[in-house]
This record gives sequence, C-alpha cells and structure tokens, in this order.
Amino acid sequence: MKLSTGFVRASGYAYKVRRVLFAITRGRVEPEEVVRAAAELNQYVFEKLQEMGVNKGDVVRISVPFSIEGGKIKWHYGGLKIEVYKREDEAKLAEAMEEIEERERALEEQIKELEELTLQLREMSEKILEKLEELKQEHTSLRLKAEE
Amino acid sequence: MKLSTGFVRASGYAYKVRRVLFAITRGRVEPEEVVRAAAELNQYVFEKLQEMGVNKGDVVRISVPFSIEGGKIKWHYGGLKIEVYKREDEAKLAEAMEEIEERERALEEQIKELEELTLQLREMSEKILEKLEELKQEHTSLRLKAEE
Amino acid sequence: MKLSTGFVRASGYAYKVRRVLFAITRGRVEPEEVVRAAAELNQYVFEKLQEMGVNKGDVVRISVPFSIEGGKIKWHYGGLKIEVYKREDEAKLAEAMEEIEERERALEEQIKELEELTLQLREMSEKILEKLEELKQEHTSLRLKAEE
Amino acid sequence: MKLSTGFVRASGYAYKVRRVLFAITRGRVEPEEVVRAAAELNQYVFEKLQEMGVNKGDVVRISVPFSIEGGKIKWHYGGLKIEVYKREDEAKLAEAMEEIEERERALEEQIKELEELTLQLREMSEKILEKLEELKQEHTSLRLKAEE
Repeated sequence: MKLSTGFVRASGYAYKVRRVLFAITRGRVEPEEVVRAAAELNQYVFEKLQEMGVNKGDVVRISVPFSIEGGKIKWHYGGLKIEVYKREDEAKLAEAMEEIEERERALEEQIKELEELTLQLREMSEKILEKLEELKQEHTSLRLKAEE
Repeated sequence: MKLSTGFVRASGYAYKVRRVLFAITRGRVEPEEVVRAAAELNQYVFEKLQEMGVNKGDVVRISVPFSIEGGKIKWHYGGLKIEVYKREDEAKLAEAMEEIEERERALEEQIKELEELTLQLREMSEKILEKLEELKQEHTSLRLKAEE
Repeated sequence: MKLSTGFVRASGYAYKVRRVLFAITRGRVEPEEVVRAAAELNQYVFEKLQEMGVNKGDVVRISVPFSIEGGKIKWHYGGLKIEVYKREDEAKLAEAMEEIEERERALEEQIKELEELTLQLREMSEKILEKLEELKQEHTSLRLKAEE
Repeated sequence: MKLSTGFVRASGYAYKVRRVLFAITRGRVEPEEVVRAAAELNQYVFEKLQEMGVNKGDVVRISVPFSIEGGKIKWHYGGLKIEVYKREDEAKLAEAMEEIEERERALEEQIKELEELTLQLREMSEKILEKLEELKQEHTSLRLKAEE
C-alpha cells in the first residue's frame, strides 16, 4: 500500500498525512495506531524537509509505501518520495493551496459546532433515560437497571 | 421516616413497597440499596401475611418506620403495621384495586415502548458522533478522540 | 361499545372519562373528537350528579354505551348507568381513590418533565439538520433544501 | 461586496460560485435567493467560458462585485473578471484542483450519511413525543395537543 499526501503546503503536510492515512486504513487499523504511525512518519519527513531547506509556503507532495502487520502500520522509508515546488516557481499552486487551507478552517469550525450539538443530544438522551427509569421505579413493576 | 403502601391487593404489595420506597428516598439512597431494602422488607411481610391467612385478592395496607444510616435503609420492624381488608367484606375496595392494577399494566407497556425508542435514540446519537469523528479524521486537523 | 370509568372520586370523573375514551378508541377516532365527545358526556353527567346530590369526595362509577359513526362518537344516553358510593358508607374506597389521585399527580409531573426534555431533543435535531445544511451549502455540491 | 471563486477547475466553477456565495451572504439573504443568483451568474459565466474556448480541465478564477438590495443579490457584470490557466501551462495546478474535487466527493458522501442519520433522529424524537402524548391521554389530566 502507498500513502500519498497530494499537493499540500509544507506547513500543513503533517495533518494531511494523518487524514489520508485515516481514510485509506479505515476499518483495518485502530485510530490510536493511525495517530502513532502518522506522528512517526511526520517526524521523519520533518527532518528531511529541514535538510532540503523547504519553506512553509512551498508546496510539497509526499508519498511512501507501507504495510499493515498485526494491526500495526510499518513505513517502508526506502520508498519515500518527496517532491518540492518552490513558492517562487509555482506561485499559483502555492496560492491555491493556501486558499484550500483557509476553507478547511471554515469546515473545522462547522464540524466543531456539530459535535457540540451532538454531545448535547447524547446528554439529552441520557436524561430522558434517567427520567424513564424514575417512571419505572415509581409507577411500574418493570425490571430496573439496579436489578440487572 | 415512615413507608406506607396505601391500599393495595395482597398480590401486589411487594412492588408497591418498592415504588413508594423509591419515591420517598430519591436522591438520598442508591437504587441498588432501595431494591435490597425493599426485598428484605417484602420477605418479612410475606411471612406475616402467610401467618395471617391473607388471600391474594384481599386488600392490605402496610406501614413501617425506617431510618437511613450511612446510605443504608434500616427497617424498624417493631413499628410495622399491617391492615387487612377481606375481599368479602370490602368487595368494592378489592374490585377498585384490581382495576388500578390493570391500568398499571397498560402504563407499563407504554413506558417499555418509550424506553425502547429512547435506547434507539441514544444509539443514533452515538452513530452520529462516530460519523463526526470520521469527518474530523479525514477532513480537519481537529483534536481526535484517539489523542485524548 | 361501552365506556366504563371504573371507580373514581366524583371530583375526578371527567378526566377519567376522557382517558378511558382515548384508550378504547385509539386509532379509530381523531384526538379532537375524543376531546369533544368526552366534554359532551361530562357536561351531561355533571348535571345528573348535581341532581343526585353527589359530593366531590363520594366515589362514582359511570358506564355508557356508544357507537362510532363516520369518525364521530355518539353517546347512547338511554343506557347511561351511574353508581354512587357515599363517602360515609364506603370510607376505605373513598380513601383509596384519593390516594390514587395523589399518585397520578406525581406521574403527571414526571411526564411533563419528560415532554420538556423531548421537546429540547427535537429542537436539537433541528439545529443539527440546519448545521448540516450549512455544511452542504458551503462545502459540497449536494442538493439543498432550497432547491427542493 | 465581491465574490471570488478562488482557483477551481472549469468543470466545477458553478458549484464553487454557489458555495462561496452562501458563505459570504449567510444571514443576510434567503437560501432560495442565493440559489437563484448563483444560477444567474453561472449562466452568464458559462457563455463567456464558451466564447473563450476554456476546456473542462483548465483552471479558472472568477470574481465579480455584487450588492444586496432588498434581500436580492444584484451582480455588477461590468466588474466581472475571469482568469484562465490552461492545463498545459499550469499542469500542477490543474492536477491539484482535480485532487481537491476528489476529496470533496468523499466529504459529500459522509455528509449525506450524517444527514440520513439525523433525519432518523428527528423521526425518533417525533415518535417519542407521540408516545408521551398517549401517556398523557391515558394516564394524566395534562393538557393535550388536541386542546391547544
């Protein structure tokens, strides 16, 4: 298997690695392992980008083969490929990637709000279940949670 | 404190004890302890009713003082009072209590249905939260559950 | 068909009529018609109880045949039967019915709370749907409500 | 005010116009009007792109000033600006935009699933409210919907 970040500004490659890794391993690897493996790769790539003198605003595309062994992600660093597009040479590309990042931030805001609402929803469901338990306790001979 | 069952058919005193106990100790005693204490009292009363030759269709009214000590319910059996109204003497009363029981069964059915629906609701909330976690994983750099 | 209130204190017969009527006509008569028909019968019975000198604390049991015609409830007043048990003669019965009413009030409180919570739940669902519509508007080319 | 699509493949400018328009007019214009205004602009731009011989795979960036008058969006076509980047000249940019579109399709899928779940949630809330109405009808003297 192979992970490819697609084009992304150097400042954002780490999150891109993680997202793509989640998407392509979904259902086969535990989230914790995805987070760990992404962090490992990102540390490795970070050093390479430093050595190559890549700037935050440059665009990069990173690909690396990996395998899943016993639920663990194993990077095959030998096959790592890093493409760099300097901001000055690929001005439009860099500008486009910056726009994309901005839009992602708007998406994040909305998803956070959705999550907040849904957590309230879950809390509400719990409260209704508690009230029903009280109804059962005081008005019926139904089996109670305390008896389970 | 004192628990009184109110009028109830002998066949139904045990659940009535429990319900009333829940209602009057709510917030001060754990549900498990209410279930335990009700069971203890009911066993004691059961033997007394046997000795007294009470029939299932007779109406009884039971009261007993108790105290709460360290979260535990302690029955003061010395103050236990059992009134018995024989079905043949208090025909209307016995009939009325039977009606009440029937209505309670209808209430039970409806509460069970409500509980079923609410459990589905909780499950639905969990599924929505899972989907949101996926959205976060694949499209944002938001903090994930796996990182908590 | 026949409606019977079961035993009930004179002060509470009207609600009992309505409840029983809901239970036995469910699915065949619109709620509005149940409310209307109950009010009609209750007005009729009220006058009879006045004439009979029934007191609020007395226990009554009322039954009356009816038919459903074209979605309407038609009372057959000719078959109306009113039993009255004077408080002084049936002291225990009256006392028992009073207890029942008290417990119903506790049930009402809990159902009101449940309803309140569930209305909040519905509101929460609506808010989540709105947020999702915003996500669709700003981040996807999915069909929008405004296009339906 | 001014709408700018940012970089986008010519095949996708229409949806991009609509999304951006939603984002920048939120709260000030009805969704129906956003849909209408976007369609109007898109028709106009479509003809221009045809005349300019733009291909689907080319990247464009479109901006146009507008004003909101009486809840309506009015395009100032005089200020319309269309930039075109031919696929052959800006290969990386075109490739990047194609990737973005692919990722948007994945997002769409997940949002559709979320919406489906939330519609089920709303339905569930309605069912619980109905059940509660039945409880009120049959076991309490609470005010009913049919009485409102």
